[in-house]
Amino acid sequence: MPLGEFDLIARWFTRPARQAVLGVGDDCALLQPRVGCQWAVSSDMLVEGRHFLSTVDPRRLGHKALAVNLSDLAACGATPVAFTLALALPRVDEGFLSGFAEGMWALADAHGIELVGGDTTAGPLNICITVFGELPAGQALLRSGARAGDELWVSGCLGDARLALEVFRGALALPAADFESVRRAMECPQPRVALGQALRGVATSAIDLSDGLVGDLGHILRRAGVGVRLDWSRLPRSEVLAAQPPALQQQCLLAGGDDYELLFTAPADRHAQVLAAGASVGVPVTHIGAVLAGEGLTIVDARGVAIEPGAWRGFDHFAGEAR
Amino acid sequence: MPLGEFDLIARWFTRPARQAVLGVGDDCALLQPRVGCQWAVSSDMLVEGRHFLSTVDPRRLGHKALAVNLSDLAACGATPVAFTLALALPRVDEGFLSGFAEGMWALADAHGIELVGGDTTAGPLNICITVFGELPAGQALLRSGARAGDELWVSGCLGDARLALEVFRGALALPAADFESVRRAMECPQPRVALGQALRGVATSAIDLSDGLVGDLGHILRRAGVGVRLDWSRLPRSEVLAAQPPALQQQCLLAGGDDYELLFTAPADRHAQVLAAGASVGVPVTHIGAVLAGEGLTIVDARGVAIEPGAWRGFDHFAGEAR
Repeated sequence: MPLGEFDLIARWFTRPARQAVLGVGDDCALLQPRVGCQWAVSSDMLVEGRHFLSTVDPRRLGHKALAVNLSDLAACGATPVAFTLALALPRVDEGFLSGFAEGMWALADAHGIELVGGDTTAGPLNICITVFGELPAGQALLRSGARAGDELWVSGCLGDARLALEVFRGALALPAADFESVRRAMECPQPRVALGQALRGVATSAIDLSDGLVGDLGHILRRAGVGVRLDWSRLPRSEVLAAQPPALQQQCLLAGGDDYELLFTAPADRHAQVLAAGASVGVPVTHIGAVLAGEGLTIVDARGVAIEPGAWRGFDHFAGEAR
Repeated sequence: MPLGEFDLIARWFTRPARQAVLGVGDDCALLQPRVGCQWAVSSDMLVEGRHFLSTVDPRRLGHKALAVNLSDLAACGATPVAFTLALALPRVDEGFLSGFAEGMWALADAHGIELVGGDTTAGPLNICITVFGELPAGQALLRSGARAGDELWVSGCLGDARLALEVFRGALALPAADFESVRRAMECPQPRVALGQALRGVATSAIDLSDGLVGDLGHILRRAGVGVRLDWSRLPRSEVLAAQPPALQQQCLLAGGDDYELLFTAPADRHAQVLAAGASVGVPVTHIGAVLAGEGLTIVDARGVAIEPGAWRGFDHFAGEAR
């Protein structure tokens, strides 16, 4: 007899609750919020062929499914507490499930977040995780907080995930070690949870980069009602990406998607504090531009000359990539 | 240009937050838990062909997708507060989306629950909702609370949803009015949220019936370490179902699935309180059996004679229906 839904949950997705009042196994999980804390909640759905390739290592998929959600908590500066996992599976594949669970639990343990509930069903492969984080009331980093005069920052490097995708698409080839490096960026993003928390009280706004720098920056611009001047030459990129043709670099850096780095703003007089926050958690942070009064995005080259906007469109899951 | 992800969210799935500190539109929603309250969390994923038919009215699908989640909150006695919606769509179909949103919002408004976030993506149709409810600490109705000597109760009528499914499968035909009645039970379940709250402090355990009476009762038996004697003749059924052959009635009542009624236990000396709780919220409640010391389920006929277990298996999404 095939393994059933409840066996599957019991085998791979049940652990004793540590923080939750009640974990997996009842109609609902029960959580006890700490007094004075707000709850940050986010939900992401991953679909095969859209968010990951069918060939991905299940361990990396388990990691990434949780990572993209943790990245949303990071962007608010929240401390991860709990998550639910809903999983549609075409079949019960033990190799897939044990790998997926291994990757997911490893990242969950690294961030002290626990699985408290969810659902499993038969269906086309689909992974939906909802995360819950805590933060002191009023201290969330929001997109709307950016102010003219702020500096614009980003964590880590941009564009490697997109470069890997282009290799998978057959648009270019890379030496094996370079490919493995950018493939890791695509398949194993490291959510900047500690950085987000370190930026509470320092940054004025933050967003996680999932749809591409220009597209996600647009959310801050619209929410905060500000403009931005972005310095192209400052955009942090890996050596692998820096060795690619300029047009490909531009595509990967500006409209790459799947970066899962934090894009944030902070007052210019907190420049040193931002650098210290990054150093305190071991994550490089780079000053990439300026928040301006007014509207719109200008991208300037190393001489300060505006670059033609060209194809700076965020990745939109329905409209497709307008390139 | 096709409607994009953000347009889609803005048009159908964004409303100003009423209770939430921050609703749709940032990396996370922000919620402010009330002091002294616990949070009940549950997540359900609905897949076409498995949880609903492709022919379903989108309004009813929007209703049902939220209803099955509210039913989990009801089973804990929690007060609905907020939910997230993650939606994979094969295409942007305006007729579908407006109908789906209409059904979802109508039920959300009826229960005072608000949409605070989520995700949309292209992919095979999949709906994943996660709900959050509040309840006073320590007052959740759990599966594990049943005690020997308790009475076993159920709300509403059982089996109509399964009867409708059998009609869709072509196993039988019903007169139009009868079919519409059972089809409504299948497509528009009414989550027993008010009843769940009225049962706090009265019931000792509760579960919502989604996989079939026998299967879901098994969860109470295992969690609480008790046995149950179920009176077959007392099981509440509609006139439409009561007119069907005994074998079909048994299948629908015992292993039907998709009932979304509350199955619960309460001490015998609270019999009148249970009836009063049901009356106070206008939901019929029926005493259908007894909780016993020991293990296992016995089903007895009107004369008190045990019926052969036969095919009392809950619906398992992977193992299939073992009938």
